Amino acid sequence: MLKPHINPLSCLHKKRPRFSFALHFHIKTRALSTKMAPPKSWLPIPEDSDFSLANIPFGVIISKNSQNFKRPAIPIGDHVLDLKAFTEGNGFSALASFPSGQFSVFSQPTLSAFAALGQETHNLVREYIQDVFSETTSHPEVLKDNPALQKEALLPKHETKPQIPMQIGDYTDFYAGYNHAFNAGALFRGPENALQPNYLHIPVGYHGRASSIVVSGTPIIRPSGQILHDPAATPKAPIFSPCRRLDFEVELGCFLCESNSMGTSLPINSSAEKAIFGYVLLNDWSARDIQAWEYVPLGPFNGKNFGSTISPWIVLPSALEPFRASKLENTTELLPYLQESREDTVYDISLSVDLTTPEQDTTTISTVSSSNLIWSFPQMIAHHSAGGCPMNVGDFLGSGTISGKSDKELGSLLEMTEGGKREIMLAGMDVRKFLKDGDTITLRGKCGEGVGFGECTGKIFGAVQS
Amino acid sequence: MLKPHINPLSCLHKKRPRFSFALHFHIKTRALSTKMAPPKSWLPIPEDSDFSLANIPFGVIISKNSQNFKRPAIPIGDHVLDLKAFTEGNGFSALASFPSGQFSVFSQPTLSAFAALGQETHNLVREYIQDVFSETTSHPEVLKDNPALQKEALLPKHETKPQIPMQIGDYTDFYAGYNHAFNAGALFRGPENALQPNYLHIPVGYHGRASSIVVSGTPIIRPSGQILHDPAATPKAPIFSPCRRLDFEVELGCFLCESNSMGTSLPINSSAEKAIFGYVLLNDWSARDIQAWEYVPLGPFNGKNFGSTISPWIVLPSALEPFRASKLENTTELLPYLQESREDTVYDISLSVDLTTPEQDTTTISTVSSSNLIWSFPQMIAHHSAGGCPMNVGDFLGSGTISGKSDKELGSLLEMTEGGKREIMLAGMDVRKFLKDGDTITLRGKCGEGVGFGECTGKIFGAVQS
Repeated sequence: MLKPHINPLSCLHKKRPRFSFALHFHIKTRALSTKMAPPKSWLPIPEDSDFSLANIPFGVIISKNSQNFKRPAIPIGDHVLDLKAFTEGNGFSALASFPSGQFSVFSQPTLSAFAALGQETHNLVREYIQDVFSETTSHPEVLKDNPALQKEALLPKHETKPQIPMQIGDYTDFYAGYNHAFNAGALFRGPENALQPNYLHIPVGYHGRASSIVVSGTPIIRPSGQILHDPAATPKAPIFSPCRRLDFEVELGCFLCESNSMGTSLPINSSAEKAIFGYVLLNDWSARDIQAWEYVPLGPFNGKNFGSTISPWIVLPSALEPFRASKLENTTELLPYLQESREDTVYDISLSVDLTTPEQDTTTISTVSSSNLIWSFPQMIAHHSAGGCPMNVGDFLGSGTISGKSDKELGSLLEMTEGGKREIMLAGMDVRKFLKDGDTITLRGKCGEGVGFGECTGKIFGAVQS
Repeated sequence: MLKPHINPLSCLHKKRPRFSFALHFHIKTRALSTKMAPPKSWLPIPEDSDFSLANIPFGVIISKNSQNFKRPAIPIGDHVLDLKAFTEGNGFSALASFPSGQFSVFSQPTLSAFAALGQETHNLVREYIQDVFSETTSHPEVLKDNPALQKEALLPKHETKPQIPMQIGDYTDFYAGYNHAFNAGALFRGPENALQPNYLHIPVGYHGRASSIVVSGTPIIRPSGQILHDPAATPKAPIFSPCRRLDFEVELGCFLCESNSMGTSLPINSSAEKAIFGYVLLNDWSARDIQAWEYVPLGPFNGKNFGSTISPWIVLPSALEPFRASKLENTTELLPYLQESREDTVYDISLSVDLTTPEQDTTTISTVSSSNLIWSFPQMIAHHSAGGCPMNVGDFLGSGTISGKSDKELGSLLEMTEGGKREIMLAGMDVRKFLKDGDTITLRGKCGEGVGFGECTGKIFGAVQS
């Protein structure tokens, strides 16, 4: 399954990337091709925007006109609706079914209080905002015909800065991308032993470092750490050095909106799916050389905790509903606590990876569907809580690296370069085995017309001299 | 180094345990025997109390007379000083060097705000409280001669209930107990390959689950999970079952009081030691069968996240200063970022483990010095942050299981029973390989006269039927 080599010429080269990958790659486009056009708005929304009325994700921003106080917000086209200003300007006055006391959730510096109100409330607010912005809104007085509130609450996106959207309690990273797990395992142990005996029975995961999760745009400083300069030498003697094998990982992330008390669980077909607030893109930056030396026997540590970047806008399950897809087939008989009542419990989101060099040449180095998972998030949640582990509102789960089967669909440089054995070619006659200082990685996720995740971007800065 | 067998008769049997282990075991008693008696108080303090004026640890309580609102507190003998009530009753009026605005930290539901003020302030407050309670206090008007404030702020300990003392951000568990690492490794891979090649170079650790940390006294529900009923069968087929190999682990835990921003570190000889707020006992309950099946390749997960119990009172480094001890010798040449300017960077705390059966028979099954570590907490902190991982006030670090070299000094049942191969004998003619429902494990830690940690206790309750 691991391809013998990467065809470096298969990579796309372009300056100033746009959402053009779907035109160039033969990827699954079920969602793109079969979904209806998003409802029209009185607010001009660019046709290629991820943030049409069909989306309505939630995030947190700061802006100059609000003295940089954090507040919840919704991106719509090239604008952002400041939910604190919208609430204070009686924007929710026509939403009778939402108890007025609850609107204080939009004065919080994170979305955690809003998330805790549950999926029904999230959908109520989403549908109300869809109506408020609709060309044929039933409440034009709220915003369409209210220039004063527009001025207060509807900000040009470029005047705002997204923040970490949730108060993150714990972060867990899974390993549900079958193709990645196989590729990475084959590199270390050969294709016959690529997967551990537990892999098809259990959604393998590990506890990550919540404090290292940062929002798109945050600089990533190359970590230093113990690395084995010469793995063959005896005795093994590490050096302390800036990471020489710095990598990205394409993942989907998921924020929780439900809790369970210690000793109880979130069962798969009743609670696990309801526990999902929404999804973001996740770049789980990885220091492969630090990780290789440190990870036995207790798992990844400093190779993974120097920064993990998420996209700022949390896309609700209801916005992704039209893009449901089947997970990868697993013929293993699952234990009942992992059996789902339906198979289409993942999503077909077209994920892409752009690498921009310090010279500003951009190459799309991968495009892969997020449906390449052998475990769904509800399965991950059911497993995580099966032994009584308390999950909390704001907890964050990563899918694990998502790779497809072809060499154009790989979710990490580790896989593209076969562990650094070969180079990939980039625009500007440049090449890479791993990331250089000054490189920028930009993940994007597009589901269909008007529904996407925006950018998840991070630039590498040189290691701090110690 | 792993003893061929446990002598079951070496275990002590007793009902109603008291701090009597030092009389029965040949443990290091440097601290106990050489330290001065604690200063005398006008408040009667039992002679064997862990909470003399030489200690003054910090915690958080609820009590009926404060409508169960959480507030910081200090245990003194059989009393607890409610710091919120003490502050509101002008108890700190004689502490001129403490800016009055900062006393709001004692109105918080956790100690995190107080911790963030730094070690100098912690010590200032500790010394002030020592003086206020001293027989020869220089400020008798504050509390000694102030029955009204005594009534408000000085509560009988049994009328209060300790809480989780900090807002825990992230939790990391290390593996610094050399003897345990060796014993556990020898069980899995034989004594020749007991330790991984990285073990003596790097303080190995893994990210734990912050949400599962609970305070002493919290019930522990036996987890269910995937276990391999017959590890020899092919193909391997797990079952879902209540854990059959439930274990405890004796550890020392440490709360942080400093932060570093992402990309920077807490260097070993300047910042790492100052980043320590204080210490607690930690019982890292472990489901050995769940852990054995799940842990490759990414480390422990559900085998460790169903509950980890800490003792409630955070003992400051200044209280432990007289009990400094040298770490275990490591002849490996360490990289400079791990080299300490002194060797006595761990503590000689006499840790003990009592197992109480459902029939209320108590056996002290282990007594071990906390100096059995090959890495100090400053080394763990320096390593954790060396790659730029952001550490925060309230983060919690575990030492890893602490075992001594003899069979009376083992920190887990896994070691005592050689992986369940033999039984240990208990009082009441009972035996154990692993823990039964209804068993209670109580850890204690005593440094010297008047300085100890109190109890870290948890009782096992039957698995929830699913």
